[in-house]
Amino acid sequence: MDRERILLTPGPLTTTLRTKLAMLRDWGSWDGDFNVVTARVRKSLLKVIHGEDSHVVVPLQGSGTFSVEAAVATLVPRDGHVLVLDNGAYCKRAAKLTGLMGRECTVLAFDESQPVDAKALDAQLAADAGITHVVLVHCETGAGVLNPLQEVAQVCERRGKGLIVDAMSSFGALPIDAREVRFDALVAASGKCLEGVPGMGFVFLRKAIVEGCAGNSQSLAMDLHDQHVYMERTGQWRFTPPTHVVVALAEAIAQFEEEGGQPARLARYTGNYRTLIDGMSRLGFMPFLDPRVQAPIIVTFHAPGDARYDFKTFYGFAREHGFILYPGKLTQVETFRVGCIGAIGRHEIEQAVHAVELALQDMGIASGEPAI
Amino acid sequence: MDRERILLTPGPLTTTLRTKLAMLRDWGSWDGDFNVVTARVRKSLLKVIHGEDSHVVVPLQGSGTFSVEAAVATLVPRDGHVLVLDNGAYCKRAAKLTGLMGRECTVLAFDESQPVDAKALDAQLAADAGITHVVLVHCETGAGVLNPLQEVAQVCERRGKGLIVDAMSSFGALPIDAREVRFDALVAASGKCLEGVPGMGFVFLRKAIVEGCAGNSQSLAMDLHDQHVYMERTGQWRFTPPTHVVVALAEAIAQFEEEGGQPARLARYTGNYRTLIDGMSRLGFMPFLDPRVQAPIIVTFHAPGDARYDFKTFYGFAREHGFILYPGKLTQVETFRVGCIGAIGRHEIEQAVHAVELALQDMGIASGEPAI
Ligand SMILES: Cc1ncc(COP(=O)(O)O)c(C=O)c1O
Ligand SMILES: Cc1ncc(COP(=O)(O)O)c(C=O)c1O
Repeated sequence: MDRERILLTPGPLTTTLRTKLAMLRDWGSWDGDFNVVTARVRKSLLKVIHGEDSHVVVPLQGSGTFSVEAAVATLVPRDGHVLVLDNGAYCKRAAKLTGLMGRECTVLAFDESQPVDAKALDAQLAADAGITHVVLVHCETGAGVLNPLQEVAQVCERRGKGLIVDAMSSFGALPIDAREVRFDALVAASGKCLEGVPGMGFVFLRKAIVEGCAGNSQSLAMDLHDQHVYMERTGQWRFTPPTHVVVALAEAIAQFEEEGGQPARLARYTGNYRTLIDGMSRLGFMPFLDPRVQAPIIVTFHAPGDARYDFKTFYGFAREHGFILYPGKLTQVETFRVGCIGAIGRHEIEQAVHAVELALQDMGIASGEPAI
Repeated sequence: MDRERILLTPGPLTTTLRTKLAMLRDWGSWDGDFNVVTARVRKSLLKVIHGEDSHVVVPLQGSGTFSVEAAVATLVPRDGHVLVLDNGAYCKRAAKLTGLMGRECTVLAFDESQPVDAKALDAQLAADAGITHVVLVHCETGAGVLNPLQEVAQVCERRGKGLIVDAMSSFGALPIDAREVRFDALVAASGKCLEGVPGMGFVFLRKAIVEGCAGNSQSLAMDLHDQHVYMERTGQWRFTPPTHVVVALAEAIAQFEEEGGQPARLARYTGNYRTLIDGMSRLGFMPFLDPRVQAPIIVTFHAPGDARYDFKTFYGFAREHGFILYPGKLTQVETFRVGCIGAIGRHEIEQAVHAVELALQDMGIASGEPAI
């Protein structure tokens, strides 16, 4: 028996059949019908952040990391200086790609169990006037921490610094209002909280800064300014778009809007999160994060303290019971992660907790209680 | 009525329903099942060029251009010097991205109606000893010319230069045998002659040069060496793969193998090409290229000389009759293009020619004869 399993991963995630069915057709990338889909997606994306007046949105082929790299490459001049607020794996990746492309990069390190601190940012900006741009990861998917976007944006605005936000795992679920929070670029992707399939990212660019970005990028494929100018002129993507991924995203967005948009999505994910925490606690599991800093996107749990535990076996048993878990991404503590996102609700999470219980039994482990 | 139209474009193209149906499932990118699909695709791709002994293949997220850029970024050291053999639009794009990333780039220009010339390459390499790498586009999709891969590869080998081949629109259809032709990198993509959906590329790298590529790329996302090392170690992609595109490609490759592989695909496309040329000639149309230099992939036709002709109207009528044509990409002459590739055969091409005939009638044009 090989029934489809439910993905409790932070993308790719479980999508609806309706979203996948949209891929059963081939589209000419030059055709007017496809341009209509692209335009509709872009318009809907802007609406999610109330950015119609202040921002444009530029879709890009590739995974989310490609869009993060493109945002840095397009916004930061070659003699720019980037400060990365680092409290996890995706922050470290942003710093790495910034340095690799030859931009000066400073890392301000925080504990991975805590949000980054806007006051420390302010002090750092005061101390180093050469910094031109700040990179913030909104929800650090590594541990699952929610970072203080609003406070960080205020500091950046006051100090006249550009702000690049990686909102990959928060966009569509957590509120982001471009009328209230000022950012120069905000990055997300098709296969996360919008519940599309993976294969493209998109970057919101503040209108006021777009023109000044011409010529910054040393990469042709990742030049968001060039992609933007071409798309505005022709309605088309510069290079072959992932047509099936784009139409699936359009269909996913239609369902997002029907569900009630971001507030409804947040409510569903919050319900998933609560159900997960309640159920896992009953089994003895302990979440890694303080609930006050936890985003309802993905939860890191301590591994059970029982000596019979190892992640691979646990993963395999949970998988047999129908659920795909996700490994931990922390360096110091043994953990695993469970996503709360995707086209799933409370009932799927209840079953997931039950699958975890059965997996523990399969391993002969009495409780999920950690060693610490 | 909005029946699905047949795409006569060089990708995205018409795929089989079986290929698209493979996308009706969600896959965890970390899961063993998905790793099996990735491994199977990579193994099959190597078989197509008989490259099991000599090459590895590295898949990459994004459109084909991303893989071309990644190949140049990964293979050419920062102080390298690239010579691009230029007889069309995709050659010019390769030169542009090479220069943008800061590699020295020289362009050897040829007429866009003619193949590049291996003797001229030889002379250029003799004249400029600083050149380290040559870029060749195998089938220049701009006009449809087939370039002499074997001759160019021999010159590069004799002179000790690296060779990067953009085989985007030829791979899978035209014979490429890594046992007989020496290249350092060869680039293609999912949505071309393998008849998958667009969204990923892949690059064959000669084993002997892979290790030396470490640290060349200034782009994290496009570092094929890094992607390769990670994939060999874990069986996984470095960043989220376009899972649905990958499984569709696996299904497309299964059909490619069942059909009889590259020779069978070439035979079908050659049949499509002949049917197209015969039918269009009957309508008075004239192909732009000398048949001796024409690849059976995409055909450029001169626009009809009739004053009532314009491409947009013509496109619109052909579209109403069920077929999506492609605009020309030449700068000097007015042309349009018709692809011979995709999950279509002689019967679809016969109907396409009929649709073109009806479109001419709709426009009140008696013949496809060009003005020249
Ligand atoms: C916060 C964050 N940034 C970046 C990424 C990278 O995206 P991708 O794996 O699509 O390249 C992810 C993926 O989960 C993420 O959660
Ligand atoms: C020869 C050649 N090179 C490069 C490309 C670019 O591929 P993409 O549009 O997928 O970026 C194409 C696309 O048709 C091509 O035919």
